Amino acid sequence: MVKIGIIGATGYVGAELLRLLLSHPKVEVTALSSVSFEGQEISNIYKNFLSKTNLICESAHDVVEKCDVIFTALPHGLSEDIAKKALDNKKICIDMGADFRLSSEEEYEKWYGKKFTQPEIHTDSVYGLPELNRDKIKECSLVANPGCYPTTIELGLMPLLKNSLIKLDNIICDSKSGTTGAGRGLTLNTHFPEENETFAPYKVGAHRHTPEIEETLSAMAEDKVNVTFTPHLLPINRGIVSTIYCIPRDKVNLEEIHKLYTEFYKNERFVNVLPLGDTASIKNVRLTNDCHISLHLNHREDQIIIVSTIDNMIKGAAGQAIQNMNIILGFNEAEGLNLIAPAF
Amino acid sequence: MVKIGIIGATGYVGAELLRLLLSHPKVEVTALSSVSFEGQEISNIYKNFLSKTNLICESAHDVVEKCDVIFTALPHGLSEDIAKKALDNKKICIDMGADFRLSSEEEYEKWYGKKFTQPEIHTDSVYGLPELNRDKIKECSLVANPGCYPTTIELGLMPLLKNSLIKLDNIICDSKSGTTGAGRGLTLNTHFPEENETFAPYKVGAHRHTPEIEETLSAMAEDKVNVTFTPHLLPINRGIVSTIYCIPRDKVNLEEIHKLYTEFYKNERFVNVLPLGDTASIKNVRLTNDCHISLHLNHREDQIIIVSTIDNMIKGAAGQAIQNMNIILGFNEAEGLNLIAPAF
Amino acid sequence: MVKIGIIGATGYVGAELLRLLLSHPKVEVTALSSVSFEGQEISNIYKNFLSKTNLICESAHDVVEKCDVIFTALPHGLSEDIAKKALDNKKICIDMGADFRLSSEEEYEKWYGKKFTQPEIHTDSVYGLPELNRDKIKECSLVANPGCYPTTIELGLMPLLKNSLIKLDNIICDSKSGTTGAGRGLTLNTHFPEENETFAPYKVGAHRHTPEIEETLSAMAEDKVNVTFTPHLLPINRGIVSTIYCIPRDKVNLEEIHKLYTEFYKNERFVNVLPLGDTASIKNVRLTNDCHISLHLNHREDQIIIVSTIDNMIKGAAGQAIQNMNIILGFNEAEGLNLIAPAF
Amino acid sequence: MVKIGIIGATGYVGAELLRLLLSHPKVEVTALSSVSFEGQEISNIYKNFLSKTNLICESAHDVVEKCDVIFTALPHGLSEDIAKKALDNKKICIDMGADFRLSSEEEYEKWYGKKFTQPEIHTDSVYGLPELNRDKIKECSLVANPGCYPTTIELGLMPLLKNSLIKLDNIICDSKSGTTGAGRGLTLNTHFPEENETFAPYKVGAHRHTPEIEETLSAMAEDKVNVTFTPHLLPINRGIVSTIYCIPRDKVNLEEIHKLYTEFYKNERFVNVLPLGDTASIKNVRLTNDCHISLHLNHREDQIIIVSTIDNMIKGAAGQAIQNMNIILGFNEAEGLNLIAPAF
Repeated sequence: MVKIGIIGATGYVGAELLRLLLSHPKVEVTALSSVSFEGQEISNIYKNFLSKTNLICESAHDVVEKCDVIFTALPHGLSEDIAKKALDNKKICIDMGADFRLSSEEEYEKWYGKKFTQPEIHTDSVYGLPELNRDKIKECSLVANPGCYPTTIELGLMPLLKNSLIKLDNIICDSKSGTTGAGRGLTLNTHFPEENETFAPYKVGAHRHTPEIEETLSAMAEDKVNVTFTPHLLPINRGIVSTIYCIPRDKVNLEEIHKLYTEFYKNERFVNVLPLGDTASIKNVRLTNDCHISLHLNHREDQIIIVSTIDNMIKGAAGQAIQNMNIILGFNEAEGLNLIAPAF
Repeated sequence: MVKIGIIGATGYVGAELLRLLLSHPKVEVTALSSVSFEGQEISNIYKNFLSKTNLICESAHDVVEKCDVIFTALPHGLSEDIAKKALDNKKICIDMGADFRLSSEEEYEKWYGKKFTQPEIHTDSVYGLPELNRDKIKECSLVANPGCYPTTIELGLMPLLKNSLIKLDNIICDSKSGTTGAGRGLTLNTHFPEENETFAPYKVGAHRHTPEIEETLSAMAEDKVNVTFTPHLLPINRGIVSTIYCIPRDKVNLEEIHKLYTEFYKNERFVNVLPLGDTASIKNVRLTNDCHISLHLNHREDQIIIVSTIDNMIKGAAGQAIQNMNIILGFNEAEGLNLIAPAF
Repeated sequence: MVKIGIIGATGYVGAELLRLLLSHPKVEVTALSSVSFEGQEISNIYKNFLSKTNLICESAHDVVEKCDVIFTALPHGLSEDIAKKALDNKKICIDMGADFRLSSEEEYEKWYGKKFTQPEIHTDSVYGLPELNRDKIKECSLVANPGCYPTTIELGLMPLLKNSLIKLDNIICDSKSGTTGAGRGLTLNTHFPEENETFAPYKVGAHRHTPEIEETLSAMAEDKVNVTFTPHLLPINRGIVSTIYCIPRDKVNLEEIHKLYTEFYKNERFVNVLPLGDTASIKNVRLTNDCHISLHLNHREDQIIIVSTIDNMIKGAAGQAIQNMNIILGFNEAEGLNLIAPAF
Repeated sequence: MVKIGIIGATGYVGAELLRLLLSHPKVEVTALSSVSFEGQEISNIYKNFLSKTNLICESAHDVVEKCDVIFTALPHGLSEDIAKKALDNKKICIDMGADFRLSSEEEYEKWYGKKFTQPEIHTDSVYGLPELNRDKIKECSLVANPGCYPTTIELGLMPLLKNSLIKLDNIICDSKSGTTGAGRGLTLNTHFPEENETFAPYKVGAHRHTPEIEETLSAMAEDKVNVTFTPHLLPINRGIVSTIYCIPRDKVNLEEIHKLYTEFYKNERFVNVLPLGDTASIKNVRLTNDCHISLHLNHREDQIIIVSTIDNMIKGAAGQAIQNMNIILGFNEAEGLNLIAPAF
């Protein structure tokens, strides 16, 4: 059994990684760490783990020592040093945060206000969107696991961009996410009586996933792509819907686009292009690693509208990270991820 | 006291009209009608009216006879004949449905699949967006109360369109509505376990509010406006947020746009332009007749993003209808509508 | 206009008092205080007050100076000194907290861990359940506004206890409350992703409302009443349902009990005894000052089951306080409280 | 692989059985039936099954023919004939409905208004609560799978009843369930805007699970047990909490009771007695086959309060049925049921 460690196990992403990895048949979660809860049983912090595991939170150092694959689920800026140490010790590191997602240090500094602390390992890292970078992921030891919003948008647009079918200067991405995306930290915005029965956008024109989206879409298009990205907070726990608006270069036929998408993703286990007429919905991907995509035109048929949905905690975080681990370790890519959404 | 009648009182819009009108100091709800519940007490159908009113559902005919102002809250196609009768009897009619919202019979037939049954009274009707048509409303006897989605979008864009500041060929309106907008009719989509904890768009590129939005925006711009409109269903009861994306004709300055909006709406009791930096949210307009608008730019500053929010049942339906009634009757426009949103 | 002050205006109870009092036709909210937000506009803290009031948070001292009636909405233990000062200055004080609810200092110390700081004014205070103590409230200057849970239970049981119809040694009160009851303070339990889609009791056998309930029920019965009280947290914003189980002294007839309740409450504006066959529900009292009570028997007909429901923030807090104020000031008891629940 | 059939696959219980059985490593779902959707793909009715299964709804007759184990998930009164046929053909039948839960035809007729149609097979059926009847289940071919509410109450009380520690004449069971318990049928009560943000009991003193609870508890106590059972509807999808009040025969010590429970359930894979001080919550059993039980006393220490919680669709329906199947087929009892609750 491959030995797995989770650094930052008591945040929401860490806890979700643990839940999924405990059911993975080919690995063993060997060690966890948490700065805030060092020395405590994880089942005392998250009661859902009661009788499921006896793991105790240790130091990050111990986790790196004991494990073969290390998942870092930390606030940005804290993973680089740990990743360096893991790589120096020939371990595999999958980073759930933003530290390795942007290739340009300048962009990183502009959006995150920090410089790279370990610039030399950045070139070895691979952006972990398997549908885009599977071959590179296979060979790498350091994965930058994609952001949740970017995953929906990148999967939603890839077939169009790879085939140069749309204009690149103005793609609108209107995204809506459940509250787990905001994490376990207490805020007035996520206080139940304040968030229940309401809805609003946040960080309009200023969300840090913007440069990640633009960099990855530009790589797909092999040209500069400009997006307008607006995240909104939904009063539900899980799931993201991105409604994406783009303008075709030439007159389009929805059946042909649908055929293109279906063909493009036909070997992808986790991407489902819905039949024309259906609309993607969070309910059918919740608690799975799946991405559902539906395709539409506006009433004048001069805009393509793509609806792309995932579970933000799984395909948008922990599940995609496990998919990346499976690829690196040579496992079946769906190992531990054969999940069916509850119908209700 | 002016005598008020509600035709279609047992639908959600009718019930909300009744609730608000029972607290209006200058009118008396005199009669209600309901095809499904004729002869029954309204408080037996909606238990929230227990001990608040003893009104009994009558026939539509009786309501027109007894009342001075008639609100018709009916599925489209059913109001025209009643409105005709009301006008013939010198009554005022405020229609909550779509029958009089489109001036073009051709467009109406295209989207609603019917012809006008009383074409001659259509020219007398006024589209009841007070902020646009107050003077015409004052003089009219037949109001086409606006749709809920259109209200957010039209108020959100009016200052830009009236001042010719944006391009007209491609305005994106991404709208999200609470479930009361779908009414009281039972559907699988609004069955609690199916709608709870999910989110999705519906009728993408095909919602019937599209021609209403385009007609009204075009009137504001005095030129043809094209929109792409996508409605989504939120797992909450009340409220709409429209996130609107438009491209300025010239380089823009957000402060100047904000000043324009503030100035434009300075005398409007129910439209609030939020301070720059704030973001409009359903929570602050819920259960009120208010519209909150916040203004933003994308990160490249080449798109204006407008967030416009209302309570779909009040400013988007019953409240706006009462505002129209107040205007026609010469009352203070806010009579019966001095509502403050509960903070939670 | 009577001048009103709210001390602790930025907590949930304070904010709800402000919302309701701003619509009260016979009073003027003159001053607010908040320790945390002194000097700030209330509309900056609660955006729902934007354009509704320009009041600024001042010191508690200033509020007492400027106002005729002072509402104290503070954590327990902080109201006594302010109440003393208010009374010394011939003002009226209505305390929303627990400081004056228990007559026994010993019980208070046992449950709250503190002694009275102003014992001499306790004897002047009246427990503000108008349906029980209206005459005393009329004459007093210091009201102990009842707790939210106790209000449901006391109104639910009063007719049975006043008529000595049930056994007193073991009344079960299983109560469920929306999250606003927990206030504005951030906790993991009320963090949206933790509270959404779950349900559980809390403080089983140990909630501080227990002695208040027992003292008031004992006063009604003129004998010692023992209750078992279990509160639960509902994933909704507003409303309490108490399901109350009690054993009749003699064989009962549900019609007779119903007749007794109907008669008992026939002059009470805010207590509604539902027709037999109906079941009380939060939805019909939400956002009102009403209490709905429904009466049932178990299948063996040897237990009476009473379902009693209120809006915890209104009849359970701010609304009842205003009702008490109206009584003291000689206003119509329903002034400012003529509220109809939204049907949805 | 054992061949499994589900009769009534398009109801909520049927759909949940399918979801869980598709992940069971030792069985194959071979056939489904549905009266309403015969001939249609299940993934067309429940979109969460898209790309997960191609099964098509057939007739009940075909399902019995093709399969070794038949699950009947039907309205009461419809399973008896199918069960008879299954048994006649040496198949195993697990009934999810009420047809075989009551041993007394008289009680069945009283609560369900029908007689047994196949009285001779009733004596062969076993009530499928594994913690009570594991040995009998092993040997049987016809299981009456318990009701959801009864499962919580029976597991919650079994240690006390088996040890004669409490009074039997008046046990109060105040239960709260998510809306999936009401099934897929559309009703006004489960229409989203009507059920959201509210809470109430239903069928007070008249719910059909009452005789099932009393029969099973009486069997445990070997004496007549009387309960008062009140179900309530929670505005969430999944989960039941039963808060159970009972009176000890003698003075109790909570530590001793806790020790008794812990010992009693120490070999039970799916029953978790929480540490003293903890409170059982839906969140930690959601989407699992687990039952969490917490133990409490009231403040006078003269009542035991037991909080028992399960996922109504899993331990309360589909999961418990699979547990019973595992027992009959000699599999590990937890096969296919190693589920960990998502923390959020």
